Amino acid sequence: MIKLEGVYTVLPTPFDERGNFDSESLRRVIDLFIEDGVSGFTALGVTSEVARISDRERHAILDATMKHTNGRVPVIVGATGDGLDTCLGYCEDAHKAGAAGVMVSPPRMAKLNSNYIRRHFATIAEKFDYTIVVQDFPPISGYHMEASLLVDICRQIPSARTIKLEDAPTPYKTARIRDLEDGLGINIFGGLGGGYLIEELISGANGAMTGFAYPKLLVETVSKWNAGKHDEAADFFYRHVPIMRFEFQPGIGMAIRKEILKRRGALAHAGIRLPGAELDESTKAALDRVLKWLDL
Amino acid sequence: MIKLEGVYTVLPTPFDERGNFDSESLRRVIDLFIEDGVSGFTALGVTSEVARISDRERHAILDATMKHTNGRVPVIVGATGDGLDTCLGYCEDAHKAGAAGVMVSPPRMAKLNSNYIRRHFATIAEKFDYTIVVQDFPPISGYHMEASLLVDICRQIPSARTIKLEDAPTPYKTARIRDLEDGLGINIFGGLGGGYLIEELISGANGAMTGFAYPKLLVETVSKWNAGKHDEAADFFYRHVPIMRFEFQPGIGMAIRKEILKRRGALAHAGIRLPGAELDESTKAALDRVLKWLDL
Amino acid sequence: MIKLEGVYTVLPTPFDERGNFDSESLRRVIDLFIEDGVSGFTALGVTSEVARISDRERHAILDATMKHTNGRVPVIVGATGDGLDTCLGYCEDAHKAGAAGVMVSPPRMAKLNSNYIRRHFATIAEKFDYTIVVQDFPPISGYHMEASLLVDICRQIPSARTIKLEDAPTPYKTARIRDLEDGLGINIFGGLGGGYLIEELISGANGAMTGFAYPKLLVETVSKWNAGKHDEAADFFYRHVPIMRFEFQPGIGMAIRKEILKRRGALAHAGIRLPGAELDESTKAALDRVLKWLDL
Amino acid sequence: MIKLEGVYTVLPTPFDERGNFDSESLRRVIDLFIEDGVSGFTALGVTSEVARISDRERHAILDATMKHTNGRVPVIVGATGDGLDTCLGYCEDAHKAGAAGVMVSPPRMAKLNSNYIRRHFATIAEKFDYTIVVQDFPPISGYHMEASLLVDICRQIPSARTIKLEDAPTPYKTARIRDLEDGLGINIFGGLGGGYLIEELISGANGAMTGFAYPKLLVETVSKWNAGKHDEAADFFYRHVPIMRFEFQPGIGMAIRKEILKRRGALAHAGIRLPGAELDESTKAALDRVLKWLDL
Repeated sequence: MIKLEGVYTVLPTPFDERGNFDSESLRRVIDLFIEDGVSGFTALGVTSEVARISDRERHAILDATMKHTNGRVPVIVGATGDGLDTCLGYCEDAHKAGAAGVMVSPPRMAKLNSNYIRRHFATIAEKFDYTIVVQDFPPISGYHMEASLLVDICRQIPSARTIKLEDAPTPYKTARIRDLEDGLGINIFGGLGGGYLIEELISGANGAMTGFAYPKLLVETVSKWNAGKHDEAADFFYRHVPIMRFEFQPGIGMAIRKEILKRRGALAHAGIRLPGAELDESTKAALDRVLKWLDL
Repeated sequence: MIKLEGVYTVLPTPFDERGNFDSESLRRVIDLFIEDGVSGFTALGVTSEVARISDRERHAILDATMKHTNGRVPVIVGATGDGLDTCLGYCEDAHKAGAAGVMVSPPRMAKLNSNYIRRHFATIAEKFDYTIVVQDFPPISGYHMEASLLVDICRQIPSARTIKLEDAPTPYKTARIRDLEDGLGINIFGGLGGGYLIEELISGANGAMTGFAYPKLLVETVSKWNAGKHDEAADFFYRHVPIMRFEFQPGIGMAIRKEILKRRGALAHAGIRLPGAELDESTKAALDRVLKWLDL
Repeated sequence: MIKLEGVYTVLPTPFDERGNFDSESLRRVIDLFIEDGVSGFTALGVTSEVARISDRERHAILDATMKHTNGRVPVIVGATGDGLDTCLGYCEDAHKAGAAGVMVSPPRMAKLNSNYIRRHFATIAEKFDYTIVVQDFPPISGYHMEASLLVDICRQIPSARTIKLEDAPTPYKTARIRDLEDGLGINIFGGLGGGYLIEELISGANGAMTGFAYPKLLVETVSKWNAGKHDEAADFFYRHVPIMRFEFQPGIGMAIRKEILKRRGALAHAGIRLPGAELDESTKAALDRVLKWLDL
Repeated sequence: MIKLEGVYTVLPTPFDERGNFDSESLRRVIDLFIEDGVSGFTALGVTSEVARISDRERHAILDATMKHTNGRVPVIVGATGDGLDTCLGYCEDAHKAGAAGVMVSPPRMAKLNSNYIRRHFATIAEKFDYTIVVQDFPPISGYHMEASLLVDICRQIPSARTIKLEDAPTPYKTARIRDLEDGLGINIFGGLGGGYLIEELISGANGAMTGFAYPKLLVETVSKWNAGKHDEAADFFYRHVPIMRFEFQPGIGMAIRKEILKRRGALAHAGIRLPGAELDESTKAALDRVLKWLDL
């Protein structure tokens, strides 16, 4: 079972002008990010607009991702479903496609409880022999997992000892998990677009898993930090954080990210699917300004 | 374009012991409900556990529903999707299957706004020439549609003048829509398991669209009311409302409903898919008691 | 320390025509409810419109309640505050006024956790030597307390072994608490306007604590049940539940309740404070109908 | 009626070791912020921990604020209440204290609607002749005000043409309000701890109203921008945004802010009231690092 490390980038789903999946652009994104130095990919995550694609499209996207990545880096596949059966179906797809693991959030349901959540992850682990990334992003399920529940899941399920944190403040929650884990060696990845990466590392995070459009900035930060060059890592991070912060805006963040990836030459088209918001003129002007300042 | 009236029942999705779709049981449910006197069906609604079935299963369920109903009553198909494209895909499926229309809730998205919601329904209406039922159930989308927005949508889109209300208090909201509609003739269906049906009718509702396991009780209430026998309708309703009220409990309601349908001989198996809650002993005891009291 | 039993009624806050607290009407309500047979009162609860009154008014209402009740039945005082200090201040007020105890919900805060909630109740218990009713009503705090957390609190804090449940489905949650309590003897009171009282009793609840305008209907149900006359209790309940169900509608329920109390001769004025909704014509017509049917 | 401009700082509420209001520290904060160049203060805002103080403490805090500010800059007073009456009571207190205006969010209520919100602000405007700042922070009320509703309120109520935006993405929403206002001259202040100030200014915001512990950084940014030195403003902002971003973390942000104000010599004690989170070691280490990097 693979131990994740470094920076995993959540892949966007490129669409062409008519709104169809554009595999050509996806291949360019994959190459660009590998060049940026990412350790791996996460396919079919929230910022892959997975809520807006059909099951048939899921297969096409997964297929294109695996074929073009071609083992150069491991691929984790988002497999969250509102029902256990749909989730297991997605896990099976990931298994067949040769994924290194899956990323799963608890399902959305009004009266969910912690017992069911433990059972959900345990059921996946019984059926599949790969890494399970526990995604801690309360808006997906509507359920807030406390640090103690996350540690319980990790203790109970050896294959589910990687957590992707999206529940702000992530540095604080990272520290709470470290307080409680008692030698388990939980693998913690920060999210939130990388905007709190240095603080997550200070708190003991192992890396980042997020969709930020310049993964090289995260890779550089994590590499320096892990090499013990903490001051350099922090200096590099602080100088670049204006763009992580800017990109990570609710509602409009995905549109900003795709616009950047278009400017970086990877996407033929920056469009996102409705009801996602389009980039407006003021956001474009602000993007121009911050990219110019950073010389990106 | 069909004008809906009377009682539309949202069909459950029967599963066999291993959790697979059980088309045989679905056919029995369809026959039972037609015998109960329903005016039509709603397939693939929230209480059809649609969040827990795959796209492939959707097709099988829709196919079985249309074939076995075989035109005896009209069928409305739930087509809500978190993206416009997935929603339109479901609308297309409904069209091909010969549905009388679709039922659509606004998509779930953090920063949704009323302009987008208008556009969402307008786009469907431009592409498909059938009845669009606007589903007003805030938990699906996380967006609360005020009475004025609902009336705006109805005014703007002639094919979308049917509203299924699930936003309690539904009698009060029915009255607010009637206050604002100014002669539009909006067709309002109450939901909430029929537990406020008499009050919805008093406020001017046209009928009910819900998944209650004894549609005949709703049919009888609506028929008497529409025949002008208001006192009889109310008397009948009040005497039977202990069961509508009991069935409609969050988290456990779907399990109660399927247990009843099993007792009525329609379902071979009462199981619902995880993470749905199973019926516990105390709820079963309470169900026994209320059914015995009602002689059902 | 008093052991609560039977039916505790949450007192409404009567206002006069100009919207000021009307102590005269409150005294009539108190007498009416004692005549109805309630075992005690809960003052300054959610349905006392406590969110819409000032700290100075709290004192006047508490004072009038204690003076007029004059020991005829025990009084529990709502003491929930968004901060621990405000909560303790309200607890102190209750102590000085001679209350039998307080009712407290966890405070509202975005990032609340179960450890803090335990500490919150423990701090109150350390300072005050009276009954603490743990109010389980998620909308107040935004935090969902699982049955296991409730049982933990009861186990840890002997004075906090009374729970008022408002988290539907309350009969199901009552049964879960009974499953876990292991002989603790937790005292469980159902809420939700009494609309699920018989099912709560079937699951093992001890009584009801709610603001329903005809407490005698709840008193009669609980008395028969506790006397072992289960069939009679259920029969009585089912025949009267149309009104519990009707009154308990979100947004408009408090206006219905006050209208009933005006008709019962207790309130001089039925008005509630803004932004509470006023009773509309259709709701009044529905109220007339259900009261006539029940001969109330 | 005063027209707000520049940077308004939301004042923290200092507490001493025993948790009591510390007026001495408040006076030092006021002097420090005036030295930092703020245009005015907002007292009793959300980050003043207003949810955790009693009505009596409100008076003491307001009194100390007005006396010590002594007209050097205008003071806006937070007056949000869950009921219209409590809100008007707070507005009256602000009036008597000589405030330049009030800041009000819609009240919290489950079934709030846009008509009521318009009425709420109109009622305040009828009774008081000062500036009303419309606070757009959905977590307070649970109601999401769209740009069109905000513009409607401003159009209808001349004294309520100042908006404090906290609904991310604030730059995008600023642009939407500008699109719709049609010459009204709405005064828009960004919030969110100043973390998106440059983008808010690009979108047409007039200034900032927030509780950030180094208001001088916001003052400098706004001053340069308003003097037409856009590049300089952006350069200054981007270089300092690591700290705005760091401070503004949910749950722990207020504890960070008070720690900074203690280090700046203003607060004798950095404590916040429970259930607010205390600063942990990892957050302190991260604070040390970012302050050192910025030489603050």
